[in-house]
Amino acid sequence: MGHNSFGHEFSFTTFGESHGKAIGVVIDGVQSGFPIDWDAVQAMMNRRRPGGNSLGTKRNESDAVTVLSGIYQGKTTGAPIALLIPNNDQHSSDYDELAHLYRPGHADYTLMQKWGIRDSRGGGRSSGRETAARVAAGAIATQILASYGVTLKAGTVQIGSIRAGKRNWEEADNELTCPDKEATVKMLDLIEQARMDLDSVGGVVECHATGLPTGLGEPTFDKLQALLAHAMFSIGAVRGFEIGEGFHAAEMRGSEDNDQMEPSGFLSNHAGGILGGISNGQELVFRVAFKPTSSISRHQKTVDEQGNPVDLVVKGRHDPCIVPRAVVVVEAMTAAVLLDAWYMDKAHRT
Amino acid sequence: MGHNSFGHEFSFTTFGESHGKAIGVVIDGVQSGFPIDWDAVQAMMNRRRPGGNSLGTKRNESDAVTVLSGIYQGKTTGAPIALLIPNNDQHSSDYDELAHLYRPGHADYTLMQKWGIRDSRGGGRSSGRETAARVAAGAIATQILASYGVTLKAGTVQIGSIRAGKRNWEEADNELTCPDKEATVKMLDLIEQARMDLDSVGGVVECHATGLPTGLGEPTFDKLQALLAHAMFSIGAVRGFEIGEGFHAAEMRGSEDNDQMEPSGFLSNHAGGILGGISNGQELVFRVAFKPTSSISRHQKTVDEQGNPVDLVVKGRHDPCIVPRAVVVVEAMTAAVLLDAWYMDKAHRT
Amino acid sequence: MGHNSFGHEFSFTTFGESHGKAIGVVIDGVQSGFPIDWDAVQAMMNRRRPGGNSLGTKRNESDAVTVLSGIYQGKTTGAPIALLIPNNDQHSSDYDELAHLYRPGHADYTLMQKWGIRDSRGGGRSSGRETAARVAAGAIATQILASYGVTLKAGTVQIGSIRAGKRNWEEADNELTCPDKEATVKMLDLIEQARMDLDSVGGVVECHATGLPTGLGEPTFDKLQALLAHAMFSIGAVRGFEIGEGFHAAEMRGSEDNDQMEPSGFLSNHAGGILGGISNGQELVFRVAFKPTSSISRHQKTVDEQGNPVDLVVKGRHDPCIVPRAVVVVEAMTAAVLLDAWYMDKAHRT
Amino acid sequence: MGHNSFGHEFSFTTFGESHGKAIGVVIDGVQSGFPIDWDAVQAMMNRRRPGGNSLGTKRNESDAVTVLSGIYQGKTTGAPIALLIPNNDQHSSDYDELAHLYRPGHADYTLMQKWGIRDSRGGGRSSGRETAARVAAGAIATQILASYGVTLKAGTVQIGSIRAGKRNWEEADNELTCPDKEATVKMLDLIEQARMDLDSVGGVVECHATGLPTGLGEPTFDKLQALLAHAMFSIGAVRGFEIGEGFHAAEMRGSEDNDQMEPSGFLSNHAGGILGGISNGQELVFRVAFKPTSSISRHQKTVDEQGNPVDLVVKGRHDPCIVPRAVVVVEAMTAAVLLDAWYMDKAHRT
Repeated sequence: MGHNSFGHEFSFTTFGESHGKAIGVVIDGVQSGFPIDWDAVQAMMNRRRPGGNSLGTKRNESDAVTVLSGIYQGKTTGAPIALLIPNNDQHSSDYDELAHLYRPGHADYTLMQKWGIRDSRGGGRSSGRETAARVAAGAIATQILASYGVTLKAGTVQIGSIRAGKRNWEEADNELTCPDKEATVKMLDLIEQARMDLDSVGGVVECHATGLPTGLGEPTFDKLQALLAHAMFSIGAVRGFEIGEGFHAAEMRGSEDNDQMEPSGFLSNHAGGILGGISNGQELVFRVAFKPTSSISRHQKTVDEQGNPVDLVVKGRHDPCIVPRAVVVVEAMTAAVLLDAWYMDKAHRT
Repeated sequence: MGHNSFGHEFSFTTFGESHGKAIGVVIDGVQSGFPIDWDAVQAMMNRRRPGGNSLGTKRNESDAVTVLSGIYQGKTTGAPIALLIPNNDQHSSDYDELAHLYRPGHADYTLMQKWGIRDSRGGGRSSGRETAARVAAGAIATQILASYGVTLKAGTVQIGSIRAGKRNWEEADNELTCPDKEATVKMLDLIEQARMDLDSVGGVVECHATGLPTGLGEPTFDKLQALLAHAMFSIGAVRGFEIGEGFHAAEMRGSEDNDQMEPSGFLSNHAGGILGGISNGQELVFRVAFKPTSSISRHQKTVDEQGNPVDLVVKGRHDPCIVPRAVVVVEAMTAAVLLDAWYMDKAHRT
Repeated sequence: MGHNSFGHEFSFTTFGESHGKAIGVVIDGVQSGFPIDWDAVQAMMNRRRPGGNSLGTKRNESDAVTVLSGIYQGKTTGAPIALLIPNNDQHSSDYDELAHLYRPGHADYTLMQKWGIRDSRGGGRSSGRETAARVAAGAIATQILASYGVTLKAGTVQIGSIRAGKRNWEEADNELTCPDKEATVKMLDLIEQARMDLDSVGGVVECHATGLPTGLGEPTFDKLQALLAHAMFSIGAVRGFEIGEGFHAAEMRGSEDNDQMEPSGFLSNHAGGILGGISNGQELVFRVAFKPTSSISRHQKTVDEQGNPVDLVVKGRHDPCIVPRAVVVVEAMTAAVLLDAWYMDKAHRT
Repeated sequence: MGHNSFGHEFSFTTFGESHGKAIGVVIDGVQSGFPIDWDAVQAMMNRRRPGGNSLGTKRNESDAVTVLSGIYQGKTTGAPIALLIPNNDQHSSDYDELAHLYRPGHADYTLMQKWGIRDSRGGGRSSGRETAARVAAGAIATQILASYGVTLKAGTVQIGSIRAGKRNWEEADNELTCPDKEATVKMLDLIEQARMDLDSVGGVVECHATGLPTGLGEPTFDKLQALLAHAMFSIGAVRGFEIGEGFHAAEMRGSEDNDQMEPSGFLSNHAGGILGGISNGQELVFRVAFKPTSSISRHQKTVDEQGNPVDLVVKGRHDPCIVPRAVVVVEAMTAAVLLDAWYMDKAHRT
């Protein structure tokens, strides 16, 4: 399988560069007869779209999804669903002076070492724009999961060192999708401050899934958490992933961490909804750490393709914090993993 | 591909249960003509083996590796290498009373929900014993990587809340493979204390790889960190994975986190050796968080297969801390990922 | 991996239905820095295109390929190459009366049984039109192979019971790409006769590849002939595949069939260029049998979706013989298999 | 996935050389709770075993299957099933003089070119002995399919130019599993004559499957016939594969070949049970052509590893015709494909 594909029985393949004609995705394995709500797909796309608020880049992308195949009379047919997302607002010239430099924190240097050529316009294939194609695929997975009773919710729970103190998802209707209204204000301040400093800041996204059946995930190499970790670390700026108690579990005793059971069910959920690699019917809970945006407008030392030293100031439109827009990407990739696990599980059920 | 296989061009398939006749592994894609050092393979097996010191379970397994195929006149032939590891010391009767209970923190409940049957002897397929097969495969990958100049080092850097304060690998010749001699003493005390409390404790393993070329990993879904995260979360007790600055990056500014470059190379390594999913030639550094051992001899609430409440005390021989033995498993899985990435990269090089 | 993808290290994913907006292909794993000759790609597309001569359907498709991604300054970058081929000339209304019938020889019945829904416009996903996307992918593989010194030649060697008596490829510049000028005339007559009879006729395509290195193909399940057979039988109308002496080998003695060797090389090529699943450096030779076109304008018995009997006469524009247009599809799929095998072999070479 | 694995959701990995300690197979994806009949597995193994009659090699292999994993209390658990088949009767010394020669028709030359090393004892990994591991896996698939109402029958229908004139499976209880008693006598004579001539002869195996549901196979690249063709051409000596009318379809008219339908079902089965890549509920029928055994005791020209000319006479015990023993291998691989297709289909069913 190509390295631009993800998944097994529900899989998708993305293509396209930041400043090419279009990006897109081919989704394979979707069950037939499912009526897709394209408004809901577009709404999920819009959550990722920049320019929607003061936080994002000023680039104005409509991210309108065109359906090329796989749908007949409004329903999935079982054939691959190809979706195209044109690149409308390309300021390629912004990147002219970067064409032969290696931007710190970006794939420029490694791509050049690996392949000897790179599309230098806006990060090319390694641009965050590629995630729009993932959101389109994940939006479809989300709808199918919803029809099975599964609900996904992701939100910002940390920006810099400011942490959400609660998980009140009714408060999450804000620019950060943060489940803590008070913390949100401070987080937004911190992001604005980073912008004014010509700098950037990182953060953490937390994702919850409820309504999952028991049985998703395979016991050995394709444990549900392994599939999720793979998915999350395939997102460009991710530096950490933890499930349930996560790194905190390292400090716990077994008597604290074990989720004991009563006839009515589990008494706690330190495991985050997975036991032995298989969903246990509890809420799935995990966190994903994002590094600060690499593109900053401060002076940075770097080199050009010939190895000469360069004093770099990255211009162009860049988010001071990638986290708010990453929330929906985390959600989309989670949906893709869960539906894939669902289909794989079904394959061997008698 | 089956869910008991891992990898693409260097891949392996494990089989076997904790208390069956044997466990084993079939390794596929190994380059031909490579002379395997079987003593070194066995030495790596012994590092995982329980009973080697006061920390491990009392179970005495020799973990002797028998070669069934793929080797001719001491060298790899390109054919699959099958390795068998007999289960010598099986106290299956220890598990009789657990046969119809769900042990907290184990796969018992989820396996039963998924498949309606489980080999209840010692965790069956979900036992940590399965990792012996991985170590055998990883030992071979380690040797091939070494022939290319790549060195792997993993060690315990945290037990409970005690952290290693330094990374002096010359001090790591201890029961925890901990690169901080003083911290090691405290960590061992903490483990012993957990044992006396009939409890267990978690910890963190850190892994370093040096000598890597640039170019390993694929830019989109098979980023090197994604393959590593998948590998690590396929190990049973893992709860967290982070690379470079990891979760700490969430608190950093871009100006701090970006690894700037000079003609002589990178000025820092906050990224942990990977940029855009591709190795950048710097040291690969990541951490893996392990939960405390689930099998503890304290009273725990659980239910049986009929849903009746049970007051459980797990007997048998169990590690109060899985971390020391997990070090070599982390190393083995890392070696497998790196060699696989190496072969995949080579496939497309002109 | 999705079932609409083909290949391992050189792979591609097709999408699109006969009468949707467009069909297309995403090609993954192409080496970087290769300058694609798009005129040559289009020329290969044109060979498959209907309407080019008196043999094909009257449908006029330009089959113009639009490049969406993966190319920078005329060269491959290592990123996935997405190609779009719009469907210009769609007479969907031709299919209105077929919407709820099962055409004999087509996928209509089985798709409905499998998925409960089908895009009934022109065969939908199961239309021969999908092969245009394969030709686009194969055209790129063909160019890369050519740069390595590999030449592919396929042609019609049988129509009905008329067989080409020789393999003079210099005579093959005819509507059938048949390497026997005299036989070509008779074959064309037979096709015309079938058309006048409102009927169709089958045939055989033979493919040759020269300049292959030794070593392509993997010894066990991914033998080169197994990959080729898989590829050929993935083409809709294929009923048979044979390599070297093929079915004739069943009648031979070992002393006749074995290709003996002298210091200067092999003394014969009954094996068709493959030994033990691996290319032996001789010419690769195989044949592919195609059934007669299923869409004929004669009265046929069938049923509708409710199981009612129907007297069917398929209207619309249909080839009386699919073989002439299949030649380039065979070539394209062969190129894809050979380049994939090349990359896979390279992965494990030291 | 490794190239020694076959299948997707029902998959297996074989290992082992002809003259090593053992060969074996790891079967992955088998549904849980299925009671395996090991006597039936062994009976299927015995059908492949040489030495059972006057036709086979004199080598005496018991081919006894040892179960290493995946079974608990007589039932499958969902865990991988590892089966070991020891190599008992190894006359490796028979091969000493062949160690540095390239036997015509064998993989010797190509393996050496590919990997620079080969296990020269008895063909090593490329020996027909590897198929014993496939039969073990296929035996399990066969049982599961039988529980679903699917019956497989394969038999010899051609040896040299002698063809079975009928398909009376009640007559097939003979050394060739040939459904034509009279033809069987002539076929046996021909094989005996080839033996006396120190030569060998080829043949054709035909396979039938009844009781299949509609819906197996995927419409594009993983058409059921493509999966079957891949499987068959992965068997060493196969030179041709055809389904339904096969190569004969090339000579037919569409009006003859199309299987028309009435409310009661199909009126014919020229397609061999598959339409558009998907099983149509009719009998699956295909044929596989085998070349004559390559190992013959006649003088043959070849070269050694240094390229020197050699006058070769292959000694040792070899079948003058591989077809009788190949029957069960065809059956086993067919079962594996069908069960895999069944599981894959189930994955996407709602």
